Amino acid sequence: MREIPVLLCRAPHQGAQVPSTLSPRHTTNAPSRRWRDRLLTRVDERIEQFLATERQRWAAFDPDSVEVLDCVVGMFGSGGKRLRPAFCIAGYLAAGGDPDDPAIVDVAAALELLHSFALLHDDVMDASERRRNRPTAHVLHEELHGQRGWRGEGRRYGEAVAVLGGDLALVYAERLLADCPPGVRRIWGELCTELVVGQFLDLRSAAQFEADPERARCIALLKSGHYTVSRPLTLGAALAGEERLLAPFEEYGMAVGEAFQLRDDLLDFFGDAVLTGKPGQLDLQQHKMTLLMSLALRDQPVVQALFAGDGTTPDPDVLRHLLNATGVRDRVEEVIEERVIAAGRAIDGTLTPEWVAEFLAMANEAAYRNG
Amino acid sequence: MREIPVLLCRAPHQGAQVPSTLSPRHTTNAPSRRWRDRLLTRVDERIEQFLATERQRWAAFDPDSVEVLDCVVGMFGSGGKRLRPAFCIAGYLAAGGDPDDPAIVDVAAALELLHSFALLHDDVMDASERRRNRPTAHVLHEELHGQRGWRGEGRRYGEAVAVLGGDLALVYAERLLADCPPGVRRIWGELCTELVVGQFLDLRSAAQFEADPERARCIALLKSGHYTVSRPLTLGAALAGEERLLAPFEEYGMAVGEAFQLRDDLLDFFGDAVLTGKPGQLDLQQHKMTLLMSLALRDQPVVQALFAGDGTTPDPDVLRHLLNATGVRDRVEEVIEERVIAAGRAIDGTLTPEWVAEFLAMANEAAYRNG
Repeated sequence: MREIPVLLCRAPHQGAQVPSTLSPRHTTNAPSRRWRDRLLTRVDERIEQFLATERQRWAAFDPDSVEVLDCVVGMFGSGGKRLRPAFCIAGYLAAGGDPDDPAIVDVAAALELLHSFALLHDDVMDASERRRNRPTAHVLHEELHGQRGWRGEGRRYGEAVAVLGGDLALVYAERLLADCPPGVRRIWGELCTELVVGQFLDLRSAAQFEADPERARCIALLKSGHYTVSRPLTLGAALAGEERLLAPFEEYGMAVGEAFQLRDDLLDFFGDAVLTGKPGQLDLQQHKMTLLMSLALRDQPVVQALFAGDGTTPDPDVLRHLLNATGVRDRVEEVIEERVIAAGRAIDGTLTPEWVAEFLAMANEAAYRNG
Repeated sequence: MREIPVLLCRAPHQGAQVPSTLSPRHTTNAPSRRWRDRLLTRVDERIEQFLATERQRWAAFDPDSVEVLDCVVGMFGSGGKRLRPAFCIAGYLAAGGDPDDPAIVDVAAALELLHSFALLHDDVMDASERRRNRPTAHVLHEELHGQRGWRGEGRRYGEAVAVLGGDLALVYAERLLADCPPGVRRIWGELCTELVVGQFLDLRSAAQFEADPERARCIALLKSGHYTVSRPLTLGAALAGEERLLAPFEEYGMAVGEAFQLRDDLLDFFGDAVLTGKPGQLDLQQHKMTLLMSLALRDQPVVQALFAGDGTTPDPDVLRHLLNATGVRDRVEEVIEERVIAAGRAIDGTLTPEWVAEFLAMANEAAYRNG
């Protein structure tokens, strides 16, 4: 496992510098972005149409059965950044894939449904009450259980419905891949495995609560690097039949994924809960051993002192102050900047200049988002 | 939805009569059974080898990560009847499939891993403490959490690990199907959807606890008819390229699946806990609205009276006595017999006499098992 790089310069906190050979311009109006966004619209339409057909069919079989389906409909319909489909489509188009081939829409749609699966299960495991400014599925169904005066334990029922909703989202994702070539399916299988193992390690390290930045980095690699960026990109490249791009896309993806995860850690402490759609300091409440937390705990005696004792959660305001005062926050910003630069280096010379610019814009958006 | 048939004759309680045109002989030594069992051995080897490779690889990445994988290893390794792979292989061979094609081993192995997924999740949702004479995965990991003195709630941690173990089993099942033809994958997708929706309806009707034999029958159709018998059979036939058999296999499968589920309901009340591998009267404790229970509640005022009141679980001995005394048990035995006969009728004339005999033997084994 790599050592965590420590840059000497201070981070500017507003977007990373890129190698001078690469254009740093924003590409939100570039044709590449327009192509990508057109396909993203088709991805949403594909999922909506798929879920509507399923809903109709199950309502005819048994009207009550749609309650589990609506966990998927609700999660998909509640918004989200569509980050994984976006990376998949960008990888596909940058690799010269035909924008009119429906296969790319199916693969990108499967990624978004897989994300619904992950979120539905994560919310149960983390006991999260809100997601995207709405009550989570397990909270909703626990409430319904109570209102209807049903038998058994409400918590168990609500969580079971949300878990089954997640299961259904995973099954639906797989169904969208029925016609996919075996090579693409193999990357998909890898991605799904990494996602589940990454989530397990995340939960396990939160329970164990030992400061281990290398472990935190491994988790970020699995849950964000591979799952969010590098596998979606390589899925797109493989579907376009462009094997040459698999290695640079993987390197780019791992760098951007790590920057994405570090931003996530920072947003949890310093972000605006309205923009993130979930309560602040959730990682702290759930004892998440994020990279931010593991660096702070490993290197800062004042932070260690704050956590020593009976295991109760420290005051978030005090911790926030310490993260600023000890320079941990700045150090994480530096790593984010370094990772965005590394991402740019990974794809330099492998794509057309327009796609290089687009990939840089996507890296910056992932690393410097506010929600 | 069909009315539940009521046969006039009393059930013999020891295997159904079969139409006179069909041979009732047992086929445990027939070549068809030997071919089937040879492939079943290869299915076990395939899963063992797949899981061993995965285990080795994840142990190298992070030794702690194998804990989630071992949920799958443990569930698969704890035995089970391999009923779904057996039906899949029988359907494939009866349809003339090549026994040396590795694809049938992969599809049958995927079915068994899917079953591990279903059991790992079901055990959490049902709060089951034992399965196949061992503690369930969520109980095991809750205990580990306590022994290690970890943070957070032990129950939540144990259940999360078991849910992730189930997720991983589903992902592994899908990975085994990477090379499968689209037609087979479509049946697979259908099977997985029915499994999840069936489990949801099962949980929902347990929570609601209203006597509704038609609903109970729908659930049995999804969870046993399709999932255990008809879809595995049609997967096998589709892989062998024999479309002609899809309809009779589906009819046979629905009949056997229902008989299988009704036997399950009876075994829960009247079976030997050592042979079933789980505590008796689990359905009762979990308020499962089985077909047995829904018939008893709908038609027998003495059973209704037993459940009226504050929702506490009645004495299992009293209920067992009433099920015998009111004739409900006999009635369910009659339906089982009728279903086995219907299963025989569905395949009469569609297969070679040897395979007809084998399919009858499998129907009887599913309907008249003791564990």
